[in-house]
Amino acid sequence: MKKKILENFDPRDAIFVLLAGSTEVSRIPGITSAGASSELTMLTPAVDTEIIIGGRPMIINEPPMTPEGIPTPAIVTKACLDLSGIRSMAVNAGYSVPPKVPFFDTGLHPALNPAEVKALPDFRKAFDAGLYLGELLDGRYSPIVLAESVPGGTTTAQVVLSSMGCKVSTSSTMPSNPVQIKEKIVKKAIGRTGYFTGNPEMAVEQYGDYMMPLALGISKSVKDSTILFAGGTQMSAVYY
Amino acid sequence: MKKKILENFDPRDAIFVLLAGSTEVSRIPGITSAGASSELTMLTPAVDTEIIIGGRPMIINEPPMTPEGIPTPAIVTKACLDLSGIRSMAVNAGYSVPPKVPFFDTGLHPALNPAEVKALPDFRKAFDAGLYLGELLDGRYSPIVLAESVPGGTTTAQVVLSSMGCKVSTSSTMPSNPVQIKEKIVKKAIGRTGYFTGNPEMAVEQYGDYMMPLALGISKSVKDSTILFAGGTQMSAVYY
Repeated sequence: MKKKILENFDPRDAIFVLLAGSTEVSRIPGITSAGASSELTMLTPAVDTEIIIGGRPMIINEPPMTPEGIPTPAIVTKACLDLSGIRSMAVNAGYSVPPKVPFFDTGLHPALNPAEVKALPDFRKAFDAGLYLGELLDGRYSPIVLAESVPGGTTTAQVVLSSMGCKVSTSSTMPSNPVQIKEKIVKKAIGRTGYFTGNPEMAVEQYGDYMMPLALGISKSVKDSTILFAGGTQMSAVYY
Repeated sequence: MKKKILENFDPRDAIFVLLAGSTEVSRIPGITSAGASSELTMLTPAVDTEIIIGGRPMIINEPPMTPEGIPTPAIVTKACLDLSGIRSMAVNAGYSVPPKVPFFDTGLHPALNPAEVKALPDFRKAFDAGLYLGELLDGRYSPIVLAESVPGGTTTAQVVLSSMGCKVSTSSTMPSNPVQIKEKIVKKAIGRTGYFTGNPEMAVEQYGDYMMPLALGISKSVKDSTILFAGGTQMSAVYY
């Protein structure tokens, strides 16, 4: 599949779709370093969007970075998009603050903490928005490169995969993956409302983030274009 | 041009782009009947968007209508789009309230009354958003059908055209076109800051609505696709 995409690749045919949003999970201390502090991680999706679409951070004065000062990978992504001439758009997958650049608005708000409550009260709205966007792009751009900016997203991915009986450890932005904190959240979340083996929609609704139903909806309605999942262990949860 | 579009027409190639937004002009009593009351005309762009994208009104319980009960033409448009299979998207050209369906957000707010103040404080932001959207769609969809929902928009069109030295009367949603009220606004607006013959950007910034710089930006960045201006005397102001 990868070979086929690269052989016939014309950058003008492709579109990079950034699904960007927050989850309350990223406020949990020690869970992510996609931001200099827990509170700043809530802004990272909007600032990543500003970098990808507008070329620079706007709602804050510097790019999102880890507490150690390593800046967001959105900068590298932006450089690649500009060098290759691939067009890009951003989608609201639950911004806590909207970016100061144009984006596809879905009306979604940040996902809730799956250890406490149902994570996605607007699961259906997100899935429907994904269906609509996929239908809009289908056959017009190919590949459709689905990417994400969701701080805390490797944790929600791990909860979703675990709840479906898939024993995995997801990756992390942190130098030492906070495996134990993640495991605690997985245990608490699944303790709240149980396993959903063979039912990915229920698992995502209870434990996921809004990137997931958007990506699922897009994947479902796209028939003619190739989709390229570009998001490591977070996107593998969608693919799975 | 029209013949050429129809000869090779495949509805899957086209996209209908609704530029929807408000202007304070529509609050002036007697200026528009794109809504049952002056205040309700401020909601019409969002409700038209809901009808086109979602198939029904959502933020209010019935379709926008004139005081006499004639419903919005968005219903006929929606029927045509569904029957033909043409895809559609909506763009925020200054919603007073956002619609409850997905749309392309530009961060714009309703235009101000050109008789009182500069109508478009965010002219540049709107033009840039239009450039970006045109670049995103160019060569992927053709024709790009530019449509609008801007209550009060025939009045802003008349002010813009008049200020450029073009002596015209625009059309109206009202049974008897409120020519005298429009003329009064034209006089007051141009009295405020003068004519802009040969300078359409200044004219639109001072006297227009946000549909105009968006459509201008899209028209400027689209190189490979055909653009179809679908909005009567309001769009003719853009074309001019």
